This record gives sequence, C-alpha cells and structure tokens, in this order.
Amino acid sequence: MRKDLGRKTLLYPMPAVIVAAYDKEGKTDALTAAWAGIDDDYRIGICLTASHHTSVSLMERGAVTVSIADAAHVKEADYLGIVSANKTPDKFARSGLHSHPSAHVDAPVIDEFPLTFECKVVSHDTIAEDTIRVVAEIVNVSADERILTDGKIDIAKLDPLVFDGETRRYMHVGGEIAKAFSVGRSLADGPGKK
Amino acid sequence: MRKDLGRKTLLYPMPAVIVAAYDKEGKTDALTAAWAGIDDDYRIGICLTASHHTSVSLMERGAVTVSIADAAHVKEADYLGIVSANKTPDKFARSGLHSHPSAHVDAPVIDEFPLTFECKVVSHDTIAEDTIRVVAEIVNVSADERILTDGKIDIAKLDPLVFDGETRRYMHVGGEIAKAFSVGRSLADGPGKK
Repeated sequence: MRKDLGRKTLLYPMPAVIVAAYDKEGKTDALTAAWAGIDDDYRIGICLTASHHTSVSLMERGAVTVSIADAAHVKEADYLGIVSANKTPDKFARSGLHSHPSAHVDAPVIDEFPLTFECKVVSHDTIAEDTIRVVAEIVNVSADERILTDGKIDIAKLDPLVFDGETRRYMHVGGEIAKAFSVGRSLADGPGKK
Repeated sequence: MRKDLGRKTLLYPMPAVIVAAYDKEGKTDALTAAWAGIDDDYRIGICLTASHHTSVSLMERGAVTVSIADAAHVKEADYLGIVSANKTPDKFARSGLHSHPSAHVDAPVIDEFPLTFECKVVSHDTIAEDTIRVVAEIVNVSADERILTDGKIDIAKLDPLVFDGETRRYMHVGGEIAKAFSVGRSLADGPGKK
C-alpha cells in the first residue's frame, strides 16, 4: 500500500533513480539514471541521453515519476539501466515489474519501488550531444507504508542503493554517524563549551 | 598530500557538501549544503541561500570548491552548516579547519576534506526568495592519497556522509549490494539464462 506524503524536498543517497513515463501508446517506459539531484524548491534535475525511449516519452507527456532504487530490487534497477527500449521494445514487461497510473501526474508509478516522486516536467534542455537535463517539479511523493516509521520515511527500511561510479557498484547506506544540526554545536558554542 | 585526478563526473552519496569561496578580502568562506547534484557534463548544481556570506563570495569571485564531507570531520561539516558568517565573521577560523588556494580556480581548497571539486561558476539564478541555484563546472578534482586505492577513489576510505533529511542524521555508506551494469544482466539475457 502507498500513502501520499505531499511535497518533499528530499532524495535519498544518490544517484540511482528509476525514471518512468508513458510512451505514445500508453506503455510504461523506464530507465535507471545515475546523474540526478534535487534542489530545495521541489525540483529534481536529471541528466539523460536524449534519444532514450523514456526520455522521448517524458518530453512528449510532460510528466515523469522518479523512484528510488532499493536493495530489494537491485537486479531490476540494474536491468533498467543496461537495456535500451529502442532495441528491446518489451523492456519493461521483461523486467517483471508492474506499474499503475499516478493519481497526480500523467505517468506510471512502479509498484515495486517503495518511494516515488511524481512530477511535472518543467523543462528539458540540451546540455551536450544527445544529452538533456530534465527539470521536474515534484507534485507528490508516495511511499509504501512498509518503509515508514511513525509516518516518516525510514532510510533503513527503504535501503536505497548508493551508486559508486568509480568502482561501478551499488552500496547500502550504513549506520548513523551523528545527528545533523547538532554534532557541530560544540564548535558553534565556542572553545569554552567544547 | 593531494593528487590531481583530472575531470570527473561523480559526486559521492548526497547530499552533504562543503562549498567554499574567497570573500572580497581573500578570507576563506565555507558552508555545508544539502541540496547538491551533478550532471554528466562536469557540472555541479547547488542550491544556496543567496544572502549567505559564501554565496555572495562565490558569485563575486566566479569560482568555488565543493568538498565531500567525510565522517572524520562530521563535527566541522555540521558546524559549517549551522553557523552563519554574517553573524560570526571568524566562522571559518573557529572551525579549526585550514585552507590553501586551488591551483586551478580562484577558490580555497580546505585541507582537511579529502575530496574536492574545483570549479568555475557558470551561472547563478534566483529560483525562490533568497535562494539561488549555482551551476559550477568542474575544472579539477583533487583527492588526498589516503582515500585512493590503485589510483581510484575508494568509497570506504573516503567514508562520505550520507545526509538523511527526514531524520536529520548523517549516515555512513555501508557494504556492497551488487556490481552495477552486471547484476541485472540475467534479466537482460532473458528467462532462459536467469
């Protein structure tokens, strides 16, 4: 079951996101992207190969979902990054994944990925040969309840992939180091209070 | 010791980056930012409060460094995100950190953070009240040798912070899940080869 969480300005440790859109025929297109970031104005920026089937679809539809790849579906996430729908038209069907229409935008939500940002496409600009930067505004964030603790996204339950581009591996998120906006307080309060 | 690695299109699990610039007087300014991403055209995008001292400095100088906050310096990284140089003019000095000029851009490299992207500022646009999106082009990546294995950045040695915005904690990167561009191959090769 999914629960709507409204708008959020977060994206879990980067970058391994599943970008999904409906194509002309209403079929679900999806790919995995490593170059994605979020700003603090509810916008996700993603760089994509312009000629990818999913890229064409999201530009045509003006809507896209961005899901966080989780460890439980690492095989499917990797597959979506390896295979091109231009060469394998039934790419999504072959992944074994399923999707349903977002209630908020004209794009598919993939059932299996537990955290999804449902977005309007704000712009898409060519930044290099066959490369576009897509800016997408988050309309809604939906999450599977199983990854929530007291209504909040629980990073340990989500178990998002961390992509290590240098060694081409997916890593887990590990344990806590410290509380943010807190551990540095001793320096802020000065030497006397260290 | 630092070693130049040339240009790279990677940024370690987001988002906790140290943004540093020289102010008018040549003093080092630095802050910690959580909303940062990278595209695949050697550009880092960062959202910042426009009135922050470091923001003003990087816009004036047209240069900035972006360092990855590591677990060994979580206290300093958190401090740089908590304290404003507008209120505490000796903010950087009080952090106990040190810096030296980049050999590539007019911006300081902070000695203690082991991985730094040295950048030219390409653009800065207002995206919301008192918020700018800075796009910075990577001119050079420098890394402390101690985080390298066979010349490559070793994510375990770097031990970058993963910021969990939902619970306001910094997390470690954990163990390997799978090889990228590999684990999904069984799906790509079809059911017969699973």
